[in-house]
Amino acid sequence: MANGLKIAVIGGGSSYTPELVEGFIRNYEQLPVRELWLVDIEEGLHKLNIVGQLAQRMVEQSGLPMQVHLTTDRRRAIEGADFVSTQMRVGMLAARGRDETIPLSYNVIGQETTGPGGMMKALRTIPVLLDICRDIEELAPNAWLLNFTNPAGMVTEAILQHANVRSIGLCNAPIGLRKWLSGKYGVSADRIYTEFVGLNHLHWVSRVEVDGVDKLTELLNNQEDYSAKNVPQQGWNPTFLRSLGALPSYYLKYFYMTDKMLADQQKALKQDGIRAEVVKRVEDELFKLYADPALSEKPKQLEQRGGAYYSEAAVNLMRSLYNGTNDIQTLNVANQGVLDFLPADASIEVNCIVTKSGPLPLPVTNVPPQSKGLIHAVKTYEQLAIRAAVTGDRGLALQAMAHHPLVPSVDTAVALLDEMLEANRAYLPQFFA
Amino acid sequence: MANGLKIAVIGGGSSYTPELVEGFIRNYEQLPVRELWLVDIEEGLHKLNIVGQLAQRMVEQSGLPMQVHLTTDRRRAIEGADFVSTQMRVGMLAARGRDETIPLSYNVIGQETTGPGGMMKALRTIPVLLDICRDIEELAPNAWLLNFTNPAGMVTEAILQHANVRSIGLCNAPIGLRKWLSGKYGVSADRIYTEFVGLNHLHWVSRVEVDGVDKLTELLNNQEDYSAKNVPQQGWNPTFLRSLGALPSYYLKYFYMTDKMLADQQKALKQDGIRAEVVKRVEDELFKLYADPALSEKPKQLEQRGGAYYSEAAVNLMRSLYNGTNDIQTLNVANQGVLDFLPADASIEVNCIVTKSGPLPLPVTNVPPQSKGLIHAVKTYEQLAIRAAVTGDRGLALQAMAHHPLVPSVDTAVALLDEMLEANRAYLPQFFA
Amino acid sequence: MANGLKIAVIGGGSSYTPELVEGFIRNYEQLPVRELWLVDIEEGLHKLNIVGQLAQRMVEQSGLPMQVHLTTDRRRAIEGADFVSTQMRVGMLAARGRDETIPLSYNVIGQETTGPGGMMKALRTIPVLLDICRDIEELAPNAWLLNFTNPAGMVTEAILQHANVRSIGLCNAPIGLRKWLSGKYGVSADRIYTEFVGLNHLHWVSRVEVDGVDKLTELLNNQEDYSAKNVPQQGWNPTFLRSLGALPSYYLKYFYMTDKMLADQQKALKQDGIRAEVVKRVEDELFKLYADPALSEKPKQLEQRGGAYYSEAAVNLMRSLYNGTNDIQTLNVANQGVLDFLPADASIEVNCIVTKSGPLPLPVTNVPPQSKGLIHAVKTYEQLAIRAAVTGDRGLALQAMAHHPLVPSVDTAVALLDEMLEANRAYLPQFFA
Amino acid sequence: MANGLKIAVIGGGSSYTPELVEGFIRNYEQLPVRELWLVDIEEGLHKLNIVGQLAQRMVEQSGLPMQVHLTTDRRRAIEGADFVSTQMRVGMLAARGRDETIPLSYNVIGQETTGPGGMMKALRTIPVLLDICRDIEELAPNAWLLNFTNPAGMVTEAILQHANVRSIGLCNAPIGLRKWLSGKYGVSADRIYTEFVGLNHLHWVSRVEVDGVDKLTELLNNQEDYSAKNVPQQGWNPTFLRSLGALPSYYLKYFYMTDKMLADQQKALKQDGIRAEVVKRVEDELFKLYADPALSEKPKQLEQRGGAYYSEAAVNLMRSLYNGTNDIQTLNVANQGVLDFLPADASIEVNCIVTKSGPLPLPVTNVPPQSKGLIHAVKTYEQLAIRAAVTGDRGLALQAMAHHPLVPSVDTAVALLDEMLEANRAYLPQFFA
Repeated sequence: MANGLKIAVIGGGSSYTPELVEGFIRNYEQLPVRELWLVDIEEGLHKLNIVGQLAQRMVEQSGLPMQVHLTTDRRRAIEGADFVSTQMRVGMLAARGRDETIPLSYNVIGQETTGPGGMMKALRTIPVLLDICRDIEELAPNAWLLNFTNPAGMVTEAILQHANVRSIGLCNAPIGLRKWLSGKYGVSADRIYTEFVGLNHLHWVSRVEVDGVDKLTELLNNQEDYSAKNVPQQGWNPTFLRSLGALPSYYLKYFYMTDKMLADQQKALKQDGIRAEVVKRVEDELFKLYADPALSEKPKQLEQRGGAYYSEAAVNLMRSLYNGTNDIQTLNVANQGVLDFLPADASIEVNCIVTKSGPLPLPVTNVPPQSKGLIHAVKTYEQLAIRAAVTGDRGLALQAMAHHPLVPSVDTAVALLDEMLEANRAYLPQFFA
Repeated sequence: MANGLKIAVIGGGSSYTPELVEGFIRNYEQLPVRELWLVDIEEGLHKLNIVGQLAQRMVEQSGLPMQVHLTTDRRRAIEGADFVSTQMRVGMLAARGRDETIPLSYNVIGQETTGPGGMMKALRTIPVLLDICRDIEELAPNAWLLNFTNPAGMVTEAILQHANVRSIGLCNAPIGLRKWLSGKYGVSADRIYTEFVGLNHLHWVSRVEVDGVDKLTELLNNQEDYSAKNVPQQGWNPTFLRSLGALPSYYLKYFYMTDKMLADQQKALKQDGIRAEVVKRVEDELFKLYADPALSEKPKQLEQRGGAYYSEAAVNLMRSLYNGTNDIQTLNVANQGVLDFLPADASIEVNCIVTKSGPLPLPVTNVPPQSKGLIHAVKTYEQLAIRAAVTGDRGLALQAMAHHPLVPSVDTAVALLDEMLEANRAYLPQFFA
Repeated sequence: MANGLKIAVIGGGSSYTPELVEGFIRNYEQLPVRELWLVDIEEGLHKLNIVGQLAQRMVEQSGLPMQVHLTTDRRRAIEGADFVSTQMRVGMLAARGRDETIPLSYNVIGQETTGPGGMMKALRTIPVLLDICRDIEELAPNAWLLNFTNPAGMVTEAILQHANVRSIGLCNAPIGLRKWLSGKYGVSADRIYTEFVGLNHLHWVSRVEVDGVDKLTELLNNQEDYSAKNVPQQGWNPTFLRSLGALPSYYLKYFYMTDKMLADQQKALKQDGIRAEVVKRVEDELFKLYADPALSEKPKQLEQRGGAYYSEAAVNLMRSLYNGTNDIQTLNVANQGVLDFLPADASIEVNCIVTKSGPLPLPVTNVPPQSKGLIHAVKTYEQLAIRAAVTGDRGLALQAMAHHPLVPSVDTAVALLDEMLEANRAYLPQFFA
Repeated sequence: MANGLKIAVIGGGSSYTPELVEGFIRNYEQLPVRELWLVDIEEGLHKLNIVGQLAQRMVEQSGLPMQVHLTTDRRRAIEGADFVSTQMRVGMLAARGRDETIPLSYNVIGQETTGPGGMMKALRTIPVLLDICRDIEELAPNAWLLNFTNPAGMVTEAILQHANVRSIGLCNAPIGLRKWLSGKYGVSADRIYTEFVGLNHLHWVSRVEVDGVDKLTELLNNQEDYSAKNVPQQGWNPTFLRSLGALPSYYLKYFYMTDKMLADQQKALKQDGIRAEVVKRVEDELFKLYADPALSEKPKQLEQRGGAYYSEAAVNLMRSLYNGTNDIQTLNVANQGVLDFLPADASIEVNCIVTKSGPLPLPVTNVPPQSKGLIHAVKTYEQLAIRAAVTGDRGLALQAMAHHPLVPSVDTAVALLDEMLEANRAYLPQFFA
């Protein structure tokens, strides 16, 4: 790190990259990036060039001594890196479209990070991530791997169990909640304490304090609803919310309001078509903007893309690891006894202090008893799916699908699995050897 | 115990009682019953007299020095008892009818021991059982309480947590499975080793051995199906069964084949009417037989009643406790670390050796990883429902209902709970104070 | 806390008080103390007046709006307090003298915080602390109790188990180690990360990093020895230290070099007399200085008294709790799963982040396997001694004494216990009822 | 097992062998031994022939179709065996002599199974046992390995961690206690229930019941003392025993009465010479008897040899494993959560039921809180010593020695280790590579 840091971004051709670059520029003093390597696969080269050249223009305008490299040679990018971040999508938006629509035809939630769709994404993604880990083990054994690739919790757990890489999973939901609270109460984020209990995309917020004073009770009573852009908003039953005693993550609506959410998804599919295609149109427009040689900053339109704060979360984490700031961030890491009913090597989403040697999870002080069963049910699915992804064992895949709480019966699991494995055949060599 | 044992049977007017009496007669040498007290409530006095007089005729014919007492004075029956067994039904068959039918109108499984129906049964039953425990604490502190009252696992856990009574929960499913295997393989039951993992009415059989040789694999491959009379038979998917690696309890069909089981229940309701009424007709006929003064033995017809082996299980357990036989029985007892993801005081269904000082649970050697999530999800519901039963807190009751895996959404839980609490108002004083 | 904080110092007549007052003055901006109540018992009134008047002169000179109250009315001091700190010595220095010398006559280590001496101190102190807790529960239920009274770990555990007070135990050893490292490496303390594993006065330092770079290995290789003034210095065996893989606390010399330490104690007793009397002479001189009406600041001589940094530790902790700084401090708190072989409510000494709602213990990342047995052996003694202190049961006291690793045999324990209980009769009403 | 069992006895030239042969003859009906292979090393060939020919004469006289083979070819003996038992002594009695006397010269207990002597025995024995395991893995993968070789607990744990063999450790102390109780109360052993808590040679008996009625209290009050022949008898302090609430194993006298036991050992050494030589004289006499061609049964004199019931324990265990009797035996097996403060793969001594698939440990219902520290301290030593035995790492060996509760200081450990490793050089190739 003598003369600054080397950072490799796998999936560097993503439309999010300008936000990340902006973050590096803004935080240069505390996080002196010397080399930024944007990597993508051959199929993504066109997009990589567009977004990469924008990145180069942004850096140039900043006047900072940062070099931006564009490459399809992943190993060269990883070699000697201090941080590797991943934000790629195996199968691209077309695969996402299938993840979201096939389940709907079985009256099952179609979602890209949980349920049968999330499982397919895990089966496609985990082998690729483990392959990246092999490169990091060889070429950058001291690097931190920051994983944004969904399902981030499962991918992180697969790496914990099957690789020897220092890895952290990241999601924008926790930072988003704190931003929302910060705006709502008109205080800076560091005066807010929130405690998260659960897994990635399956958490309950069991403490909310501003300057040490409880705000959770009033939030539950007022049924205030924090909801991300990419999840349709649905009101919570007030009696349920009060007796739950914790703010449920917006992803919990898939579990607590399955019928309504399913109806919404089916209605939306009829009205707007496949959501993945909507996203694709937004992305196409963004790339049109990016290609403008006159543009040398992140365009405003990116903020409406969803996934807000991802880059902020990434830059914050790198900065804290680099400087050892010991601040609290909500991350996906090994459980190590924090939730006493899950194995030590299960990934959980939990408050950590970020030391120079890595994140240390903080104990949870208020675990809603209601949450335990659902957490364990979803973790059971996750563990089975991870083993299926690594082995290509169809029996395990069926067990994973059948034990997901959103899959209503074994018969449905059997049918869904057959159709979805076949639809993903190109990306699942482990199942079609 | 100087001159033989005193046994109190709460709910002694049950149609099962003749089987129990037959068991006491057959096992007199090893279990010398001096006094058998059959207790029932005023509303059950008529049935108590009929079945009680049959019991007296059976004993008389045996020539054994056993006294049969009929009473509605529970405290007198309990005083100084060595064993107290409970087999009563709070709200009688009418309440069971409501437990089974109200959920069906919401497209939810209607079942008397699990789901919303089982929960109502728990809310009605737990306070009554704890009241009986108060009497035992005072009048027979050394007695063993053998609890057959469903949901047996939840009732046992409530007693573990809220009473100071030596209590064991009993179910006929494990003994039934061993009987079936014994017949199938043509060997005596003591040459068969089966390992149960899970909760009452929610177990997986993860080891089956005859003379120490594995039979589980062939059972899974042949999809052989052991099913009790009172659960409609449904075939398991063969791929699912093989990859599950354990024999699922027939109650698991409610969870793994929810749609089929629901359709069956709705069809049966249309064709045969409410199952509780079918049972009532069978019972009425049995009591007609019992009332015949010429009858002095258990009539054959009782065996078709379902609930087979309940009395055998009870007598076996009393005999082993009395003699300290150290044999293995599958019982509902405190977890105490056997399932490392559940609290120490959660009730589980597990192999135990029965010592004179009580049952000691054996470690489970093969926990199917698939089972953990569902076990924990159902245990979460059970714990919430027990707290609701003890406190009468509607918020807790809603949480319990909403977190039961068979309840599809919070909205359904809200509506079901309102209707079912109201329908059970007469038996739920704690909710209508 | 509207207009500043109220702080009650039990044992306010201690010679350490001027350091604490200096700390409050220096940190006024972040810790606005409005009222400082120094409390002592009748026998300590003379010293309380001397040190209290010095405190008043110090505050006056500072010009801050802080009031210093001197009182023997403990309840008035506690009422409405934000922080209560305790630094008293039940039985005063005379009792300490007995704690240190009686064991020596049995060839057993005589030490005021561990071994038979520490046990007597615990038996005398715990009931008094629990009595203070009764006042706090009633008069200041939101107060934080900061306990410096030794044996601080045991006293903290007694409070965790037998009172309903927010309590933290404090020791100066961890802050002392960091100060020493700070000086040695010429960097500010916040750039140093140390991980403590164990109990109060029984810890191993298993990580030492400066700016995230390991320094433990070189410290172990160079056999550098950090030792407090009040513990005679003894060199560690270099092979032992390297293979131990952690820096042992200087109190561990009593366990690892028992023979040498015992010989030193016996020699020192012959040469210098009872250490408690040496301390008494130092204290007498301090109080002579304090009584000088011209003195209005902490005299330099106090720093040679031992117990350095106690006040700094106290003020730091209050400041962090008040402001919710989320910084890392090494404290004595409930284990809560951090050391997986100890009960949840055992007190341990561990790194915590200090939030506004209290300290959250950080996971230990490197537990020396060697440490587990000794930690558990000493904790076993501690738990027995706490139960003995609360109940006055001589059988428990004998078990505690006999199971302390520094007591060589049951026979010695029997004899020591008899003599020491008798010598402490005036302070142990629970054993002489 | 079609035509009877094959049994291999490693260390078959031991003087205990006739007792074992007698056991096989007596239990032939339930344990049909077809081939008994007595194996020994070249140095033991003379003894093997003497004892082996006696065994052959014993079998001949019994008229049973059992073949006795004598061999130095270990692999041939193991090939296809159903049971392998080990009872050898690496370094023979000369090594034991050194184990017992070198520590005494440092004023440390000299004992062949615990303390520095036991540690040396572990260092010599573990690699040899693991080597035998390699043969079993290859030549008899379904065999049960019954290990009598001391320190039996440590050897069993080493096998659990470093081999893939079904192994059980055995000690005669538990069966001896039950025999003593059986004689004392005049009842058969199956009417006695005893619960053992702890490790091999470090257990507390926390329940004693005859026909389910507590006898522990009276045993503790009467200070009755069960003591094996090979441990000098010392009275327990009555107050200590009562407040301990459990019967301590006679080996616990080394820990609870260290000074007395040490004095006894030093006195005995002066008077009688090295105990190992006393044993040698007894053995020489036994072998003189064995060599008599007229002898065809176990001579009475063997019973005075100490180690009573070892053979009975072995035959009982084989018989129960072979028949799946599900009876309770006290064995050394993997902890698997029984003692919640020790790792799952630590060996403990615990009641088990012996099923056809192996022993299942029973939960302990009454763990004396006093025992935890000492159990964990000794287990810590054991774990370090096992790692030292496997790796030959001197640093680990020093840590093991220094953390044994019977070793008074690090300095003593350093000196003892140097001298004892050197004295055992011929049997410790791993330390002298």
